[in-house]
Amino acid sequence: MPSYSLRELAEIVGGEIIGDSSVTIDSVSGIREAEKGEITFIANPKYEVYLETTKASAVIADIDGNPATPILKVSNPYLAFLKVVTLFSESPFKKYPREIHQTAIIDDSADIGKEVSIGAYVVIGAGTVIGDKSTILPLVAICDDVKIGGECLIFPHVTIREHCEIGDRVIIHSGTVIGSDGFGYAKEGSAHHKIPQIGIVRIEDDVEIGANSAVDRATTGVTLIRSGSKIDNLVQVAHNVVIGENSILAAQVGISGSTELEKNVTLAGQAGLVGHIKIGEGAKVGAQGGVTKSIPPGMSVSGYPAREHGFAKKMYAATTRLPEILKEFRKLKARVEEIEKGLSSGSSAEDN
Amino acid sequence: MPSYSLRELAEIVGGEIIGDSSVTIDSVSGIREAEKGEITFIANPKYEVYLETTKASAVIADIDGNPATPILKVSNPYLAFLKVVTLFSESPFKKYPREIHQTAIIDDSADIGKEVSIGAYVVIGAGTVIGDKSTILPLVAICDDVKIGGECLIFPHVTIREHCEIGDRVIIHSGTVIGSDGFGYAKEGSAHHKIPQIGIVRIEDDVEIGANSAVDRATTGVTLIRSGSKIDNLVQVAHNVVIGENSILAAQVGISGSTELEKNVTLAGQAGLVGHIKIGEGAKVGAQGGVTKSIPPGMSVSGYPAREHGFAKKMYAATTRLPEILKEFRKLKARVEEIEKGLSSGSSAEDN
Amino acid sequence: MPSYSLRELAEIVGGEIIGDSSVTIDSVSGIREAEKGEITFIANPKYEVYLETTKASAVIADIDGNPATPILKVSNPYLAFLKVVTLFSESPFKKYPREIHQTAIIDDSADIGKEVSIGAYVVIGAGTVIGDKSTILPLVAICDDVKIGGECLIFPHVTIREHCEIGDRVIIHSGTVIGSDGFGYAKEGSAHHKIPQIGIVRIEDDVEIGANSAVDRATTGVTLIRSGSKIDNLVQVAHNVVIGENSILAAQVGISGSTELEKNVTLAGQAGLVGHIKIGEGAKVGAQGGVTKSIPPGMSVSGYPAREHGFAKKMYAATTRLPEILKEFRKLKARVEEIEKGLSSGSSAEDN
Repeated sequence: MPSYSLRELAEIVGGEIIGDSSVTIDSVSGIREAEKGEITFIANPKYEVYLETTKASAVIADIDGNPATPILKVSNPYLAFLKVVTLFSESPFKKYPREIHQTAIIDDSADIGKEVSIGAYVVIGAGTVIGDKSTILPLVAICDDVKIGGECLIFPHVTIREHCEIGDRVIIHSGTVIGSDGFGYAKEGSAHHKIPQIGIVRIEDDVEIGANSAVDRATTGVTLIRSGSKIDNLVQVAHNVVIGENSILAAQVGISGSTELEKNVTLAGQAGLVGHIKIGEGAKVGAQGGVTKSIPPGMSVSGYPAREHGFAKKMYAATTRLPEILKEFRKLKARVEEIEKGLSSGSSAEDN
Repeated sequence: MPSYSLRELAEIVGGEIIGDSSVTIDSVSGIREAEKGEITFIANPKYEVYLETTKASAVIADIDGNPATPILKVSNPYLAFLKVVTLFSESPFKKYPREIHQTAIIDDSADIGKEVSIGAYVVIGAGTVIGDKSTILPLVAICDDVKIGGECLIFPHVTIREHCEIGDRVIIHSGTVIGSDGFGYAKEGSAHHKIPQIGIVRIEDDVEIGANSAVDRATTGVTLIRSGSKIDNLVQVAHNVVIGENSILAAQVGISGSTELEKNVTLAGQAGLVGHIKIGEGAKVGAQGGVTKSIPPGMSVSGYPAREHGFAKKMYAATTRLPEILKEFRKLKARVEEIEKGLSSGSSAEDN
Repeated sequence: MPSYSLRELAEIVGGEIIGDSSVTIDSVSGIREAEKGEITFIANPKYEVYLETTKASAVIADIDGNPATPILKVSNPYLAFLKVVTLFSESPFKKYPREIHQTAIIDDSADIGKEVSIGAYVVIGAGTVIGDKSTILPLVAICDDVKIGGECLIFPHVTIREHCEIGDRVIIHSGTVIGSDGFGYAKEGSAHHKIPQIGIVRIEDDVEIGANSAVDRATTGVTLIRSGSKIDNLVQVAHNVVIGENSILAAQVGISGSTELEKNVTLAGQAGLVGHIKIGEGAKVGAQGGVTKSIPPGMSVSGYPAREHGFAKKMYAATTRLPEILKEFRKLKARVEEIEKGLSSGSSAEDN
């Protein structure tokens, strides 16, 4: 791995140096674990308390003042950190040899691009196309007539089912299943008859999908994940779902059939969406949120059933006060009874 | 793929034709994506609005009137659609070659039926039995002494652990694990000692299990999934659970140890059930429902903790009004105070 | 499998015999399924009702009296049951042959210990070390520079990514992914740029992880699971999480990035924790609990958002009464109005 002076790093990623620009950086680390020779970052103000005690040789941050540790001051520390980490990490293209392992079983009719890496015990079906510079790690199953673009990275134990289409620079982590059958049955009496799921999954460019997630193929047509979307581990995407560009789905999210997300939607961890609804551009769903209705663009929702986030917060705060309110309510009722009793005895007194 | 006139389809699946019965159908599709030559369906009234604009050559629906597009009128459109889709889709039995791939490692003591398909890099353990016409796709791991029935379909990367029993026509999707150890420990101080899980999983006929689900083996005895039940992706079935006939478990459902479902139970997405309870025949749990007690037959529940659905809806509606109610409550208190003050000053006035 | 008299079992596991100590035991079972020759146990008083009807030849329990079935009386029945089950179950070390399957692809630079079992189609990367007596079952993917300790048990279809470290006697169930990339992006406009995740996962001794779970590698540094912790199926552990000793994570739990659990923490099924918080020693989170803030040591919380368990119970009970309270509230308002009207008409009467 290479080493850089802080001055060189500033030239590469931009930003202003506060303190000694000659320190040597040969690795990156978290602010609490960092050692001499390492650069770290502060993106969350919560971590500024560690600025005085970190052993890092430099810190990427958007802060003023003159701390003991040299600062690389930038307006977006996380983005600058990304660029620095990239300098110290190896690209998959270089990391995995550009060769096809002799144990890979590739159908004769498959079309494998240039500089592709295919690992041991990979199985690739008939009619499948894999673009240039893609990396398929060991023990991956790719079924018939799949299209995979260029510069993709597919980790061990991924399954990609027949006819699915995957764009360029897509990353799919271990154990994830693309194109499993949608969950569709026609009921006759109490029996459930399986509806053949003859659609596909299409994943556009620059999508990343975490480990052990599942994206079901459409009943007919397409389950669609648009470009730039990022999906975490253990996420469920049901048949005929559409996920708009640059959306973020955190771990264990579940989206039911035919629901559509417009672009830039954020779903926090364990959020669940019913089927056949629309989530507007830029909308956000809080962790564990249970979404039962369409959400207009730009709205944040949370809770179960999910409601506008500001309102939900008020509502949960009110709920917290509920046991106490019930006591107060009983007292107030008693006071009203007291008044009524007084008035009625007063009245009857007047009647005398 | 074949093509049919609408009249021929009506003869095969039943129903009455409204409009031109001579149109040619060579594929199926969703109502919004359908093109000329395709047949689609309406099972959910929400989609009737697309009836006037669809490009489909025919629509399976239970509607009256005389729309521009020919209608195949049936009382259960989804079931009729199933039959039509089946005409246009290939059966696994034909799709996968009836042969054993030369790289499959099958123990000599295993008993493989007739017309079985076994894919590349499948591993099958000692004493395992696989019934006639079953299909085992590449990279599946089947451990020792497993029994698999006839006409089963096991997708890539499934694991079936030792001694588990699987009926006929069972479908298991990629990444799913059958017979992993149940989560059982005996506590001694703060240490947890593993209880060996020596039971099995038994899956009866016509069960389908989605991708990346897990069904744990029993501590002793059997974790049981009865015939006709359908389980979606990423579902957790703990040790010694019993799932009754024709039950439906949507994605990301979790069932804790020893809980029993009677038949025809429906669990919506992300629902969770505690252990050692009983869910009565035909009961339904809403999405994200958190079930903490047994549920009587036929009852629908929702929310956390789960309560009877109609009541839960009222309760959540009331909760929504809570912030406003708190304001009103404060006002009412002030009014009562005002009355009390008035009365007491009135009294003291009388005292004068 | 061996057989024992009840007297012999009492000598091995301790405890006092009530009834006939000469009965022969050759297997273990659940109290409802047990047959003659089997021993069962009661750890949960709920099951004492079966004591009179069980066909078991003996019952491990902490009860008095003189039931029809011989009792092995111990103070911790589940722990005694564990010891008995262990007598009747085969250790992985004996169950799986101490050999390396000829189809396993092991890099020349890997260091494999003594008496290791490696199954068919296992792939092991460069620089990887596997300790003595470990068992790696078929179709496991272990990437480069991984360290695995002694007496580990790794089930089929597990993926262990590069540089991760695993202690002694660790069990990892099928489909689980160790060291997948953490979910980290730097935002620039609406695009999300991937932060290379250059940290690792370290799993200490005696940890067990269920099926289809995911433990993400750290952005930098270590995602850490301390010794003796037990993790169930379909659990998400995000980057830079720390899990303290002897913690219990039930199925479908999700922990967001950088959150730290001290030791002996219990997270019940489907619980979710936001990132960057601390869960104190011995704290407990109820099923489906949504934890949004740090929790002090020893506290039990439940609900969404999670609050102290006793309080949450009161709050949910109060919520249940809410629809009825709203009715009462409206009535009370009407009564106050009635009083106000009476007083004001009284006053105006006086004005006359």
